Amino acid sequence: MAANTARSKTVRSKTPTRPSKIQLDDLVLANKILFRFNVVDAFGHISVRDDRDPKNRYLMARHLPPGMVTAKDIVTFDMDSNPLTHTDKAQMSERFIHGEIYKLRPDVISVVHCHARPLIPFGTAKGAKLRPMTHMCGFLGCGVPIYEIRDAGGMTDMLVRTAPLGKALAETLGDKTVVLMRGHGATMVGESIQEAVFRAVYAMDNAVVQMQAHALAIGGEVEFLSDEEAAKSSRGRNVPRAWSLWKHQMTARG
Amino acid sequence: MAANTARSKTVRSKTPTRPSKIQLDDLVLANKILFRFNVVDAFGHISVRDDRDPKNRYLMARHLPPGMVTAKDIVTFDMDSNPLTHTDKAQMSERFIHGEIYKLRPDVISVVHCHARPLIPFGTAKGAKLRPMTHMCGFLGCGVPIYEIRDAGGMTDMLVRTAPLGKALAETLGDKTVVLMRGHGATMVGESIQEAVFRAVYAMDNAVVQMQAHALAIGGEVEFLSDEEAAKSSRGRNVPRAWSLWKHQMTARG
Amino acid sequence: MAANTARSKTVRSKTPTRPSKIQLDDLVLANKILFRFNVVDAFGHISVRDDRDPKNRYLMARHLPPGMVTAKDIVTFDMDSNPLTHTDKAQMSERFIHGEIYKLRPDVISVVHCHARPLIPFGTAKGAKLRPMTHMCGFLGCGVPIYEIRDAGGMTDMLVRTAPLGKALAETLGDKTVVLMRGHGATMVGESIQEAVFRAVYAMDNAVVQMQAHALAIGGEVEFLSDEEAAKSSRGRNVPRAWSLWKHQMTARG
Amino acid sequence: MAANTARSKTVRSKTPTRPSKIQLDDLVLANKILFRFNVVDAFGHISVRDDRDPKNRYLMARHLPPGMVTAKDIVTFDMDSNPLTHTDKAQMSERFIHGEIYKLRPDVISVVHCHARPLIPFGTAKGAKLRPMTHMCGFLGCGVPIYEIRDAGGMTDMLVRTAPLGKALAETLGDKTVVLMRGHGATMVGESIQEAVFRAVYAMDNAVVQMQAHALAIGGEVEFLSDEEAAKSSRGRNVPRAWSLWKHQMTARG
Repeated sequence: MAANTARSKTVRSKTPTRPSKIQLDDLVLANKILFRFNVVDAFGHISVRDDRDPKNRYLMARHLPPGMVTAKDIVTFDMDSNPLTHTDKAQMSERFIHGEIYKLRPDVISVVHCHARPLIPFGTAKGAKLRPMTHMCGFLGCGVPIYEIRDAGGMTDMLVRTAPLGKALAETLGDKTVVLMRGHGATMVGESIQEAVFRAVYAMDNAVVQMQAHALAIGGEVEFLSDEEAAKSSRGRNVPRAWSLWKHQMTARG
Repeated sequence: MAANTARSKTVRSKTPTRPSKIQLDDLVLANKILFRFNVVDAFGHISVRDDRDPKNRYLMARHLPPGMVTAKDIVTFDMDSNPLTHTDKAQMSERFIHGEIYKLRPDVISVVHCHARPLIPFGTAKGAKLRPMTHMCGFLGCGVPIYEIRDAGGMTDMLVRTAPLGKALAETLGDKTVVLMRGHGATMVGESIQEAVFRAVYAMDNAVVQMQAHALAIGGEVEFLSDEEAAKSSRGRNVPRAWSLWKHQMTARG
Repeated sequence: MAANTARSKTVRSKTPTRPSKIQLDDLVLANKILFRFNVVDAFGHISVRDDRDPKNRYLMARHLPPGMVTAKDIVTFDMDSNPLTHTDKAQMSERFIHGEIYKLRPDVISVVHCHARPLIPFGTAKGAKLRPMTHMCGFLGCGVPIYEIRDAGGMTDMLVRTAPLGKALAETLGDKTVVLMRGHGATMVGESIQEAVFRAVYAMDNAVVQMQAHALAIGGEVEFLSDEEAAKSSRGRNVPRAWSLWKHQMTARG
Repeated sequence: MAANTARSKTVRSKTPTRPSKIQLDDLVLANKILFRFNVVDAFGHISVRDDRDPKNRYLMARHLPPGMVTAKDIVTFDMDSNPLTHTDKAQMSERFIHGEIYKLRPDVISVVHCHARPLIPFGTAKGAKLRPMTHMCGFLGCGVPIYEIRDAGGMTDMLVRTAPLGKALAETLGDKTVVLMRGHGATMVGESIQEAVFRAVYAMDNAVVQMQAHALAIGGEVEFLSDEEAAKSSRGRNVPRAWSLWKHQMTARG
């Protein structure tokens, strides 16, 4: 991390050129999809490693509701979550979620942070555990840890507004795909913008169905995917297929 | 209050000039937002202290569904909830909710009264208590009292249609942000129109999530924000950010 | 009833003139409102006593989904539910619900029959009882009987497709405002089209909230309106106010 | 089946002409209806026996989200689920669900496969059983089996991507109308596209209501349709009436 920091300072001294059009377009579209499907409301954000320098930079919108984000609002950050562009604008106070995860997880290309409502109960009801109900959510089969901000920061305003809090969150996430945040929301990661969005939408979806299944079982058992089923079903053509539909829907209705 | 009444009588004898355009615009927009997000249906209302004479007057629409309110429907009331304009029109029978809260709470600038569905169970299920699930609802951390109209008025038609019933409600609210009304709905206050609307939307939101968390815990414990977390998280940039989105949405779709 | 039958036979021999435009417009609008708010889907119907001969005739659409009904689809029926117009068209098999209620309830001007989803559990869960949660549903305070078609017809296809089944339903309704139909839906009545529609929308609404309240109370008590509160709150300006909004919404969006 | 296979090989050697316009139109419309009513999302499919050779061919869209399907995307398959057209395109990996059901069920004309959310709990909560709540769902009265893919395939990715897995599903379906698939979704059949779509929409609908009824009964009894009521009520004019509305809705809004 020390090396990263040094490098990013060097980068900052150069004038950053514009991110690639494909990344800008996908990131803007991702913001709109997350808003349309109620993963985010006025709050929440999505980032992606910057194609131009994926080890040291990421892209994310400035402080704006996701549904209002356009390409010109996309900021370039270094891995310490310092803005390299748009420095005259307000930035997301929780950008450290993104930077700190990228530092610890070289495999992660994109990060979503949200307050998706159906995920909140799984982070607050004692003993509840989000588990994969169907093959669309095999990515939950590796386990879904819960981040307790009190462990890292004591009594806070609940926001991950510093690097140490972000680092603690990244460590709780570990090698998983989704981390729930008690009294706050959730963060999910992917190997692409598309995968991170897919996991956000379907993790939320899984939560709704799982709550219903527990209620229907009235305290009895629910049959989840086995670890093997979850692992096998988390691959395949699901992500591009869902993305193609969402892109189609966003284009059709603005 | 006696002084207020005397003063308002004086005011009434003058011809009231028009409220400021910004207040009219915000109040009309607030009506539309509350309707769009199902905080209100054909019923419910929002008021604001009149900028021209905030100690003695407030503004609120005449007897109309909130979704139909326009600037020309905004009435000026004195703090005894007598209309100073639009005196030939029918007025909200429950306007005393607003006037009586303004009398007791000089810090309150805006009041919302609604029948938001998810809040009803928390006012009627014995032992239920609305508590902050996330940092978006830190304003619930100070406690949410329940108004029992039977205590003030015996067996009524449930409406706060007199000054004494309004005063009893204001006293039950006390120094809090939200008061639930058994068998009726809820009333919430803020230091601005934006804050009152924000609290109405997110109190309702909190109720939905809290019901799910209790169901998921199946009688077990749910972890709410601590008092300190709630107090710390009720500040910040949330209100203007949400308002900017809602304004954008209303403008985009009429 | 014998007299009614005799009279309607006389009426049938005359050429019926068109119903009043106001009744046609309101009845078509009512169909659209019930569809928009999910009281009905492809199924369900609403009728009104014919202004031209309210003792002996009623108006209702021919066999069509409510969302597709236009003024030219409104049929005139006698109180035995024989169509006096549109005799070349298919008619609702359950029109006897309407005719038989009009025979037994001279105070009833309009009847809605629907399969509104949230009402179904209250007709099928043993021991459940629909009761008024708020002052919007004071009309439920007089009690909500449940029609068991097995008592009148044994094992049927569940449809009220004969006069005797309709009469049994009307008798179960008695002097109430709403009757639930086990394994089928509900029927509600009003002194106007507007009131019948209002009761349909808000009975459904009450059911949703009541289910949530019972779940939140986890087997504990829920505080309903008292009989006196219900009786007092079932009067007032609610019906015209809601209708004005719904009419506005239907006109604005077609 | 051996005969079917031989025949289909012959068919494949001929140049297939276009399917009938009415089948193409209905199949495209069915895709749109299933999408609009959330029976399917980016995933799920519907097929129909090909009118030109109903014993040996069926029609279904290529690998596409149902909401994006147009007439030119409809592929002709033989009963072994080999594509006879569009052979340069990706196909649904689970097409074997369709072919194997057609082989075992000569009465079935159309098959829907979906992940409709409310049906998932009934396939995963131990002891839960989907049963007919109202006369709209009489088709559930014959019983709703649950397909456990582990019995046929052990630990898989949950997809019915081979003929043997499809055959096992068809055998679990037996002579019923709907089969739930544990950790996956459901498959329903009909004597027409319209009936298969109707059953998909209303099975989902029934699931929602049944979960609410169980919750309201708090572990107590729910009264379902008796076998006789279910059998009697599964006939009638319901399917064409619902279809006429859905067609109207799709045409009105694209």
